[in-house]
Amino acid sequence: MTNLNDFSNKLKEEILKAKSIAIISHYLPDGDAIGSTLTMYGAVRKLNNAVTALRSDTIPTFLKFLPLIDDLILYDEKSKFDLAIILDCGDEDRLGSKKSIIKNSKTSFLIDHHNNNPLFANYNYVDNKASSTCELVFDIVKLMGVSFCKDMAFSCLTGILTDTNRFMYENSSSSTLLKAAELIDTGLDKDYLIRNLYQKTSKQSFLINKILVENTEFFFDGKFAFSYISNEDLNKVGATRDDLDDKISLIRDIEGVEIAILVEDRFDELKVGLRSKEYVNVSELARRFGGGGHNKASGFYYKSSIIDLKKDLMKEIEIILNENK
Amino acid sequence: MTNLNDFSNKLKEEILKAKSIAIISHYLPDGDAIGSTLTMYGAVRKLNNAVTALRSDTIPTFLKFLPLIDDLILYDEKSKFDLAIILDCGDEDRLGSKKSIIKNSKTSFLIDHHNNNPLFANYNYVDNKASSTCELVFDIVKLMGVSFCKDMAFSCLTGILTDTNRFMYENSSSSTLLKAAELIDTGLDKDYLIRNLYQKTSKQSFLINKILVENTEFFFDGKFAFSYISNEDLNKVGATRDDLDDKISLIRDIEGVEIAILVEDRFDELKVGLRSKEYVNVSELARRFGGGGHNKASGFYYKSSIIDLKKDLMKEIEIILNENK
Repeated sequence: MTNLNDFSNKLKEEILKAKSIAIISHYLPDGDAIGSTLTMYGAVRKLNNAVTALRSDTIPTFLKFLPLIDDLILYDEKSKFDLAIILDCGDEDRLGSKKSIIKNSKTSFLIDHHNNNPLFANYNYVDNKASSTCELVFDIVKLMGVSFCKDMAFSCLTGILTDTNRFMYENSSSSTLLKAAELIDTGLDKDYLIRNLYQKTSKQSFLINKILVENTEFFFDGKFAFSYISNEDLNKVGATRDDLDDKISLIRDIEGVEIAILVEDRFDELKVGLRSKEYVNVSELARRFGGGGHNKASGFYYKSSIIDLKKDLMKEIEIILNENK
Repeated sequence: MTNLNDFSNKLKEEILKAKSIAIISHYLPDGDAIGSTLTMYGAVRKLNNAVTALRSDTIPTFLKFLPLIDDLILYDEKSKFDLAIILDCGDEDRLGSKKSIIKNSKTSFLIDHHNNNPLFANYNYVDNKASSTCELVFDIVKLMGVSFCKDMAFSCLTGILTDTNRFMYENSSSSTLLKAAELIDTGLDKDYLIRNLYQKTSKQSFLINKILVENTEFFFDGKFAFSYISNEDLNKVGATRDDLDDKISLIRDIEGVEIAILVEDRFDELKVGLRSKEYVNVSELARRFGGGGHNKASGFYYKSSIIDLKKDLMKEIEIILNENK
């Protein structure tokens, strides 16, 4: 569906008649995934109590302060639902092993803002110009005639703040600011939210900054910055993977850098995060390696060694930078 | 004057009749000082061409991208003006050696948002609840009936963004977001602004992160974080003082830290920056050392050694933290 009003009406109709409703977002969830899940959960509860908020993965520590976070239960693949509301999933695989939720539900609705979404649900509302899924959920909740309580507003604002990096990214517009203002005006504790999101960096995350400086290399006149944090590096300062959250921004934000890549160890593969600043579409680059995401923030997993990865990346990036000269 | 409407009317009246107008802000200017100067300059020019935008100091590199920045001329103490508009100065001394502008002007207006402002101009509008002087200038410009062009909006948004650390600080409210949205809707190039403010970290500033980690010490169960970057440290990575801009946030934002202090060498004295997170008023602490500022962001200069400073600070901070237990 391309009309937000029709989509919202249809969703409300299905919510009102469903005997069981599930809300779920992607694995390795971020602030927008969890934020949109909890916002929608709060809204649906006001229409129909037969709703379960699901998680497809563990909740990152930095999001555990969100209201109603303990209501999220791990999806059991045997569960069947009348209605599934799927949030922030760029494709079916982003549900990980939990994609059975689609065939386990009579009707499915998808709300998302990623590029090239294959529209895998029965009803899909995808707007890749939206800053965040939370911004879309904000509109849909209002169109369904549900008012925002403080808790819903708190989760919704969390998704907007984290997916825009506090209104920094291009998809963040004046209307994003207006929505944030409206959410704050519900009376939510903005300062508590800000302290939890931005002023609770772990000491280990701070210590990682030193290793990040030591490991970052610059190529192609400083247009490409490449960094790798190994499990050994993490162990050196007692850090976990959560402590690497958004470290990639520190290298993208260096003057002259157009493409920033930060690689992390993940069991038997490498997690490769990509960011660009102005003119390179890194989601295209990620797709060449089987990944995806947004134009300026994307990622993929890589099965071979860091040396092979670097070699592969250097080739592709040389071509991209030459194309954009 | 405590009524913003009366103040704006009076200011407009004086602008319209003045034969010469000066606009000036504080020394060691930041984004709000320069942003408010350029915004007011743009507005006054629409009412009266006999206006000069002054600077009391050099312009930091990171602000040189602002429109009309080259119009700012260094104040010559022999100059006399009918009207001086003084922006973002918590007290007269913040004009540095340029405070003669007050006696060199027939009438002076002050617009500011710092605590304990002694109201040193003929007409003063000070609101310490405002996020920034730019937010006050936004209101005053509108009350004077002057519309925002893109350039004015660009400078005004710069002041709001820098003084709120992108809507992070407590003084940033939903009305701050509404003003920012209105400024963006003038059609200014938000992404260019964001890239210049947040994505042009110098490589040296990035390298300083390593030294910051090495030099940061934690006291009182991690509630107090203390760091010192010497001139030698700067030289090690070829950095300048500009590269230390906002590094103090990196230590304030560590979990558990309530008071963060970052000390820098400044010729024959030490520049001491103070930040707090939740319950400590660091402007009181700064005042004990002859400085000032905001409740959660303040500073002072110290004439003795770093060892003496640390000793003095430890004593005061132990008392403050005990009081707030």
